[in-house]
Amino acid sequence: MSAPAIPERLLLGPGPSNVHPRVLAAMGQPLLGHLDPAFLEIVEDVKAGLRRLFGTANDLTLPLSTTGSGGMEACLVNLLEPGDHAVIGVAGVFGERMCEVARRAGANVHRVDAAWGTPLDEAEMAAAIARSAPRVVAFVHAETSTGVCQPVEAIAAATREAGAYLVLDCVTSLGGLPLALDDWGVDAAYAGTQKCLSCPPGLSPASFSARAMERVAARRTPVQSWYLDVSLLAAYYGHQRVYHHTAPISAIYGLAEGLRRVEEEGMAAREKRHREAAGRLLEGLALLGFQPLVDERFRLPQLSAVRLPPKVMEIGEAELRRRLLDRWGIEVGGGLGALAGTLWRIGLMGENARPECVDRLLGAVRDELD
Amino acid sequence: MSAPAIPERLLLGPGPSNVHPRVLAAMGQPLLGHLDPAFLEIVEDVKAGLRRLFGTANDLTLPLSTTGSGGMEACLVNLLEPGDHAVIGVAGVFGERMCEVARRAGANVHRVDAAWGTPLDEAEMAAAIARSAPRVVAFVHAETSTGVCQPVEAIAAATREAGAYLVLDCVTSLGGLPLALDDWGVDAAYAGTQKCLSCPPGLSPASFSARAMERVAARRTPVQSWYLDVSLLAAYYGHQRVYHHTAPISAIYGLAEGLRRVEEEGMAAREKRHREAAGRLLEGLALLGFQPLVDERFRLPQLSAVRLPPKVMEIGEAELRRRLLDRWGIEVGGGLGALAGTLWRIGLMGENARPECVDRLLGAVRDELD
Repeated sequence: MSAPAIPERLLLGPGPSNVHPRVLAAMGQPLLGHLDPAFLEIVEDVKAGLRRLFGTANDLTLPLSTTGSGGMEACLVNLLEPGDHAVIGVAGVFGERMCEVARRAGANVHRVDAAWGTPLDEAEMAAAIARSAPRVVAFVHAETSTGVCQPVEAIAAATREAGAYLVLDCVTSLGGLPLALDDWGVDAAYAGTQKCLSCPPGLSPASFSARAMERVAARRTPVQSWYLDVSLLAAYYGHQRVYHHTAPISAIYGLAEGLRRVEEEGMAAREKRHREAAGRLLEGLALLGFQPLVDERFRLPQLSAVRLPPKVMEIGEAELRRRLLDRWGIEVGGGLGALAGTLWRIGLMGENARPECVDRLLGAVRDELD
Repeated sequence: MSAPAIPERLLLGPGPSNVHPRVLAAMGQPLLGHLDPAFLEIVEDVKAGLRRLFGTANDLTLPLSTTGSGGMEACLVNLLEPGDHAVIGVAGVFGERMCEVARRAGANVHRVDAAWGTPLDEAEMAAAIARSAPRVVAFVHAETSTGVCQPVEAIAAATREAGAYLVLDCVTSLGGLPLALDDWGVDAAYAGTQKCLSCPPGLSPASFSARAMERVAARRTPVQSWYLDVSLLAAYYGHQRVYHHTAPISAIYGLAEGLRRVEEEGMAAREKRHREAAGRLLEGLALLGFQPLVDERFRLPQLSAVRLPPKVMEIGEAELRRRLLDRWGIEVGGGLGALAGTLWRIGLMGENARPECVDRLLGAVRDELD
């Protein structure tokens, strides 16, 4: 009945990343009640920190009590009503997922596909938006299944021109790349805590523009999810402090500390650290025959998708990942969906975007391939 | 930018309760990936521990990545399709909430009301079930807004006779009272971690019968929530280990440790401890003029709702709760909904169901009323 020992891991997959001891220590603090003024002060700190990282003045910027995928659902089900049209860009698993979530909210989904490993075509997105008079346009900023960073501005402009609402998936970008929701004109965005913030999974930082909240207030039908209804959440996370559900107190302690670490470093230095680590990784991997999937202009620094050399395919890519985990304590990710079996996804996120993490992985891979 | 100090609190409200240091320490362990075999072993431990506490052999018994209110939504949206009829017992806030969630899932809700502070009338529930041919019957086992423990057997029998599916809210009962989902014939149940399990909030332990899973498989329409779709969750929490969302790893470490503590104590001893603490509390409060809201036969040991003596109303009940928090570091709960301002809800849950917690509260109240 004693607890199993937790093996030490270097988490270089697509998330979670390793959590800093300071964040773990913060989570170990005794609980406060979810309506305790001392806890609500911490919540206010978190909201302010998230606003800075998202690049927004949105009042309703909060940690949703769900994971990133639940954050996706929250953004889409609040803005969509049955029969609404939605234009969704699909260049990987998470774009696909958006379509599925939007369909389940009763939307007519117009998908715009791009080859996995490439960004969405901005002209195609603009054409689809002009054609279908959508309520919502949605796409992924940092596609975790391919390692592509999607430029936001042009699609955002087309969205605004059509009078639609823009939903942006920032799960893997928040805390790794600078975001500018207000400048871009994003109406609803969601993220995860277990990627570039290096906190445990379990919360979805999210932000809703005033315009988005007006849309929610003007709905003809109630939001299908009571739990994720942002007008109810606003009553707790706003100034009224009306009980809705019990917030995940310990996880919010951890997020507060994670955000404090980001602020201490500064977002510019943090982005630079991510870019340098990715450069070092791809250089080292190239010597071993791994080739990046994504054109340099669109590569995410925090997540590198790499095609595998013949030597890896001989051993078997899953077998080699298993060896890295068992013998070296290093986790890397395989391909998802259409890319399963053909590539690896290597995350250098948050605390792990450091040369020593890169070198530890390169040394292990070199050894295994020798 | 340094972290605010967390004041020490004795959490005697309706939840969260104080978390044991062993649970906090477990959450402080380094992260594993959500597909790491070492993590999946812990998940299996948690599933087995939850099965024992729920009193079920249900294969799909799991910690949902959401809080108790999200667990409510998960149970209802999986079993209900638009146009289905649902009979819901309402004797407090959480029964009300079930109606709202079921309506948002498109159900025709037939509510059976009971006075707050009393249990549902079993004959009325049976009559409503016989009348409306419901798909789902739902009620709350331990109503956190009133402190009533609802007997399950008779309503469960009427549900089964009508061929309906029974959803049971066990948020405040799991880990405080013995549960017997299989003997009772419950098809879907959900709970919280921050009540009698004395873990932080953020997960909803839940269980779905094989019969419930067959119903989900036979749906004509997709479950409206992708995030809470149990057939997708079964692919991760079952043997296939298909990625769905990233499980809240640290919270699951904590839950595993919380369940271990329950097993070490044994559920019978734990129930006895809760009953003794509640007895001591009500005896002591009676001397100060507080009277229990609920008839002895239906009182929850883990949560006592008490009517307030004139002395408290003179000071103001919210003001007195504020003084208890600020001067004594003790949190108790006020009334919710129709009972706001008229009573207190005092939780002696999990780790806090101990005579020393009772005495600390009684001493503080006595002092404040002197």
